[in-house]
Parts: sequence; structure tokens; C-alpha cells
Amino acid sequence: MRYNTISFLSDFGYEDEFVGVVHSVIRSIAPDVAVVDVTHGIAPHDVRAGALSLARTVEYLCPGVVLGVVDPGVGTDRRAVAIEVGDGASVLVGPDNGLLASAVAMVGGASRAVELANAQFQLPGHGSTFDGRDVFAPAAAHLAMGAALTEFGELIDPASLMPGLLPILRTENGELIVEALWIDRFGNVQLNLGLDDLAEWGDPFELVVGEHRETIHRRSAYRHIASGEVGAIIDSSGLLSLAVNGGSAAAHLHISTSDELRIAKVDAPAGSSTPVTFGRRS
Amino acid sequence: MRYNTISFLSDFGYEDEFVGVVHSVIRSIAPDVAVVDVTHGIAPHDVRAGALSLARTVEYLCPGVVLGVVDPGVGTDRRAVAIEVGDGASVLVGPDNGLLASAVAMVGGASRAVELANAQFQLPGHGSTFDGRDVFAPAAAHLAMGAALTEFGELIDPASLMPGLLPILRTENGELIVEALWIDRFGNVQLNLGLDDLAEWGDPFELVVGEHRETIHRRSAYRHIASGEVGAIIDSSGLLSLAVNGGSAAAHLHISTSDELRIAKVDAPAGSSTPVTFGRRS
Amino acid sequence: MRYNTISFLSDFGYEDEFVGVVHSVIRSIAPDVAVVDVTHGIAPHDVRAGALSLARTVEYLCPGVVLGVVDPGVGTDRRAVAIEVGDGASVLVGPDNGLLASAVAMVGGASRAVELANAQFQLPGHGSTFDGRDVFAPAAAHLAMGAALTEFGELIDPASLMPGLLPILRTENGELIVEALWIDRFGNVQLNLGLDDLAEWGDPFELVVGEHRETIHRRSAYRHIASGEVGAIIDSSGLLSLAVNGGSAAAHLHISTSDELRIAKVDAPAGSSTPVTFGRRS
Repeated sequence: MRYNTISFLSDFGYEDEFVGVVHSVIRSIAPDVAVVDVTHGIAPHDVRAGALSLARTVEYLCPGVVLGVVDPGVGTDRRAVAIEVGDGASVLVGPDNGLLASAVAMVGGASRAVELANAQFQLPGHGSTFDGRDVFAPAAAHLAMGAALTEFGELIDPASLMPGLLPILRTENGELIVEALWIDRFGNVQLNLGLDDLAEWGDPFELVVGEHRETIHRRSAYRHIASGEVGAIIDSSGLLSLAVNGGSAAAHLHISTSDELRIAKVDAPAGSSTPVTFGRRS
Repeated sequence: MRYNTISFLSDFGYEDEFVGVVHSVIRSIAPDVAVVDVTHGIAPHDVRAGALSLARTVEYLCPGVVLGVVDPGVGTDRRAVAIEVGDGASVLVGPDNGLLASAVAMVGGASRAVELANAQFQLPGHGSTFDGRDVFAPAAAHLAMGAALTEFGELIDPASLMPGLLPILRTENGELIVEALWIDRFGNVQLNLGLDDLAEWGDPFELVVGEHRETIHRRSAYRHIASGEVGAIIDSSGLLSLAVNGGSAAAHLHISTSDELRIAKVDAPAGSSTPVTFGRRS
Repeated sequence: MRYNTISFLSDFGYEDEFVGVVHSVIRSIAPDVAVVDVTHGIAPHDVRAGALSLARTVEYLCPGVVLGVVDPGVGTDRRAVAIEVGDGASVLVGPDNGLLASAVAMVGGASRAVELANAQFQLPGHGSTFDGRDVFAPAAAHLAMGAALTEFGELIDPASLMPGLLPILRTENGELIVEALWIDRFGNVQLNLGLDDLAEWGDPFELVVGEHRETIHRRSAYRHIASGEVGAIIDSSGLLSLAVNGGSAAAHLHISTSDELRIAKVDAPAGSSTPVTFGRRS
């Protein structure tokens, strides 16, 4: 055996038997390999959400095989790939649609990559809608059992792999344009924004959601956010999250995943000249 | 040890601790046996949905014990059974309510069956509402550890087991009556219809849902279904599924599980005489 | 290795990668220890629901480490603790907020307890919002691997641990005041009421939900509850549950978790004198 852990993420959900079938296929090929379920709750077909989840997770995963399946293009000519990182420390397996790209980048980039073409390592299956079962799970299991990358097909240029699309911060009209990367179960809204990026915008800063403006203070814990207030907190990825104590910031602010938000300084709203006021306090 | 895998399906869901308790009971009896969760997302009390899920899954499961618990009749005199298949290659454990029947049929039928009556292999438990914990999990674990089928109770005639109820195709007024077997997480609608059954109905064919008629083309991949179109695709069970690219066919067509649908030829709607038209093209 | 099982309950849900990250952290420290997921479907921040779930479950868990994370106070000065029970038979790990208290009480109380303070057994992590990953999972894994309780920090007085808050039965105006402890996936409503407590209230008894009164019969199985009727059944915890055959008692009676309900004798409604009627039948 070459790897003893397969970490598995998908958009298969928990209502159906998809996850169980993949586990069964892996176990039938590699009975002593442990499968760690990262999550299967990625929204259906949401490649971006899956890529972000893998990118947040990858530093904590056990060395081994990472199996990622969010694959709206299944059955088309999008490539099925295995991507080696860390000179063989781990291999990521999945569709070449950007799902794996951010995680690969997080751990130093691909050392080699291969297209999964060898039918010997695939199940004949029924139809061509479930490559998780027929192509990716067998590949992950055979890799764990020691099959060499080159047995699966031709090496391909890692530079030819579909890149990940991570939103870039930009400034517009004196406001910082950010994005809601992730809304977790608790309603916390993760932004593509680290603490350093926030420095020049002050504490508190102004959050602009559509027409709505809200003054946000940085807080050190959810419980330190006052009732009725939205706070900003450094989250478990080291990014800034908007949070409400005991409630959902996403619901409170009517934010959905991928929404664009704006950050401004409290005393200098963008798009308006600073008003001349007499006796303005602080 | 006689079997090293227990594959486990139920309608216990993920909100409560039912699944965790069953895992704990199994582990306390058979610590080295792996439990593979097929799914626990079967709709509450939906024996038919559980039976169909097991039937779709069974060819991929590892040899061993299959534990199925969808059991609205728990506490009544419905029997608790273990059904041996493949001359002992595997044993299915669960209530005798049809849940296991289709899977048993898929793998060649029962070689032996037993009623789980021996209290030695049961937990005293509290109440009589959780046979998954008190009867079925211990039976699965003890079977895996090598207990003989006949230790659990009297052998019963496999012909006395509750049969599965799979919908049969039929033709009515020149239309094929089919059923929505399964609506998966992605909104794909699996029909009780193979490719052969469809041959005489043409490509495209007409799908009739209540008063609504829709022309359906066969497609080779979800991505090959045009925007706004419902396509027909051979799914991962080898059956025909209705699908929408990037969306839910079930929502689009207002179909629920078990709904009866009709299939007709495009140019010969049932219940109407073929219209005489001049210059009609193909 | 000192323990080979970690039983894990949380409010992390299944949509996000929280559970998978915790599994990965445990596996990276204690690769041969099995993690049994009790459930991760506890409602967000619902410490009481998590405590009740652990209390119902604890007698079935494998000896070892119990990891419980429902932690709305993460990042504040609430303590992180490990609580030894059964003179070392098991150790419960989690926040000191009452989550573990009822389970500890169920198994005979704490023999020793320690505050998890030693940074050597913690991950540096990002932020301070995910102690499940950075504090509790590493502690559980190191305990399983044989680290002594006293290596984690100062022993603390078990009497100083936050107690659990289990609702107490009380009588008011001739009615018994009970509480809806748990509404399970099937809509069954578990009450804080054993069979003995019910004895004097008769069979049938009267259930009072707000202004609504319903006559409830004890039944021995869900299937023995008549159509349209709510029955009372001894559930898998040995407590009384309200149930509807094939449906949801909670939905039928508009009951939510933690609701206060009243139980009365059928012929003596509280707060009203028994009416004098002529010719009243039975």
C-alpha cells in the first residue's frame, strides 16, 4: 500500500446512496484504506464551493489521496485527472474543472498530472453519469494500493489543468469590493479578506450590502458581539467573517454565497463628497 | 470472523443519534468489522424507497452483512429476519416488510432465511420502538463474528418472505405507463424503463405528465441537454432518467416520487386520431 | 494506546467541512483510533439538545473518549475540559457549558476533571472560532493515544463543572407540567416522563397543549395507534413519547422542542369543577 487515507469531498448529499456506493467501491479494491469524508454537502454542481472547501481543508487532511467529485460535466469530454503534489506526498483525483486547483495551489502546486484513461482501472458501470463510482473511486483506491501514476494514462502538462477562480480584491470609488466566499451552517459569512487587507479601512468599518450600510466592529469571539449587532471576526481559515451572536449574519444581512459586498471607511462614504457640517462630533 | 463488512441503510436520518447508536452497538460486539453507510436519508417509513435504493446498490456492496432498517411496523408481529444469499456469500438483515426483497432478488434469491428470535442475540433495550438498536444491529454484528444462521431462530421458508413491489410497465390507450422510481438530490427522475423498453417509442418521444406534454430527446450527458429542455439520459442504474442541465427535472415537471407518467410517440398522441395534414414535414 | 474509540457529537451539521476536518486532525494524531459519529445534526448552538442526545446515548457508546462540541461560547473564557468517568473507563472532552454534564451524571459522575490548557496538545490554528479542530480534537486523540489527564493542565474540582439543566416534573393546579425534550426525525415527541410518573394520570389521559386538549391512549407500537389519533408509547429511552402512526405527532399537535405541556386526568379537567350533567354517558 502506498497511501492509507482517502479524503473524500463531493456534492452527492446524504439523501441518496451515492456516497455509500463510492465507499463500497473503494473498500472492494482497497479494504484496509480509511476513507475520511470531508463533506458531501457541497451544493449540487457548485464547483466553486467545492474548490473553496478543499482549499480551506487541505492543510488539515492526512497525506494520501484526495478524492473530489463535483462534476456537472460528467459524460462530456472534460478530463478525469490525478494530480500529484509534494513530489508524491499526496495525489488529488477528480474532474479537471477547477475543483482541485485551489487545493493544489495551496500545497505548492502539481509535480505531475495524468489523465485517467486506462479502462483497466475503471468499472464498466451503467451509463456515463456516475464517474465518481466508475472512474474516480477506482482510481483513488488503486493509487492508494500502489498503482503508479503513469499506469493510469499519459502524463499531461500541469499547466494545462483548469485553474481555480478565486475572487481578487479590488478597490472601486474608494471602496473595497469583496465577495461572500462561504456561508456556513451557522450563518457566518466568510469574506475574501484577511486581517492585513482590512487594516486601512478602520475598526469599525462600514459594510455596504446593496443600499444597506452597516457599521461593523471587530470582535474576538461570537459571544462578544452585542445583541442586534453584526461583528467581524477572524475565522478558522484566518479570513474575516461577518457574524451575529447566536444567529445568522447571512440572514440578517440578506447575503448569499458569491454576493459582492463593499467595505468603506466609516466617515467617508464613497460616491459622495465629504459633507461640510458644522459641529460634527468625532 | 465470518464477514468483515456490514453495509447499513436506514431511514434514520442525520439529525438524531439513531445511526450513531447502531454503530456503537455493532462496534461493541464486532470491533474489527467495518460499517459502510449506504445512506440514512431514506424518507421516514418509506419502505419502497429503501428497497429501491438497496436494489440499485447491492451489486456494488462488499460481500458481508447488509443491514437495512426502514421499519414502520416495529413493535408489531412483523418478523425480524436474516436472509442468506449466494450460499452464504452475504446475509441481509432487517424487517420482513419487503425492504430487502428486491436486493435479494437482484443477487439470485435467498438460499436460507431465519427469523431473529433468540433473545441471547438481542439487547434488552428500553421500549420496543428501536429494533435497529436492539435486534438488527446485534444480529448483524454477531453474524459478522461468525454466529451461524440457525443460532438465531427457526429457519423459515424463503417463499414466505414479503415480496418486493416493483412497478411493472404497461401499455394503455397506446401509451406506455411508467413510474417515477426515484428523484435524486440533483432532481433527476429515474423511470422504471430501460433503453430496450423505449425503443419503439422513438427519439424524441412524448412525455405526458398530467395535462402537460413535453417532447424529450435522448442525450448522452447532462451538459448536452439544451437550456430549457428536459432530456432523457441512461443513468447509473442503466435506467432512463429525465434530467435538466444544471437544474432539477423533477421541479421543472412537477414530478414527485411514485408519480405515474405516460410515454407516447411524438406524432401519435393517444386518445386522438392521427390528424390528416398536408405537407407535414417529417 | 489507551482507548481505541472516540465517539463524536456536534452541532457542525453536514453541509460544511467541520466534521471532516476534525476527523482528519484526529487521524493525523491517532491513526488507529476509530471515530464513531454519534450525530452532527444537533441544532446550531443548542447545548441543551446536545446534552440530552449524549445522555440518551451514553449507555450504548463504546468505552473510550467522548468528544462533544456544541460551543456557542468558543473564544471566550469558558473552560475547555476533559472529564474522567468510571475511574478512567472513559473520558468526555468538550466545552464546560453543560453539554457533557448529563452524560457524566448518567454514568456515575466524574472521578477527575482537567482544564485543557497545555498548548502542546493544541493546534496553532487560525483564529479562535474552531476549538473543535484546535483544542478538543487534539485532546481527544492524545488521550486515546495514552496521554495522562494531568498532562493537559491543572486538575479542577468536578463540582465546579457547569451542571446540566434537566427539566423537573412538577404539578400545578392538579395538572402535571411536562416538557417536550426531543422531537425526532419521525415527529415523535419525547417527554420528561417515565411510565411510573404517568401511573396516577390514567390511561387514557388528557394532554393539554395551550388551549387544545387531546385524549391520549397508551399504545404498544406505532402501528397500533389508530388513524387520526395521537398515542403514547414507551420509547427507546424508556420515556413516554407522543406519536402518530405514519406521521408526525409534533406537527399534528404544533409542538416544538422545549415546549411546556400539561397532563390531566380525563374526567377532571383542572381549573374547572366537574360539571353536573343529566344522563351523561360514560
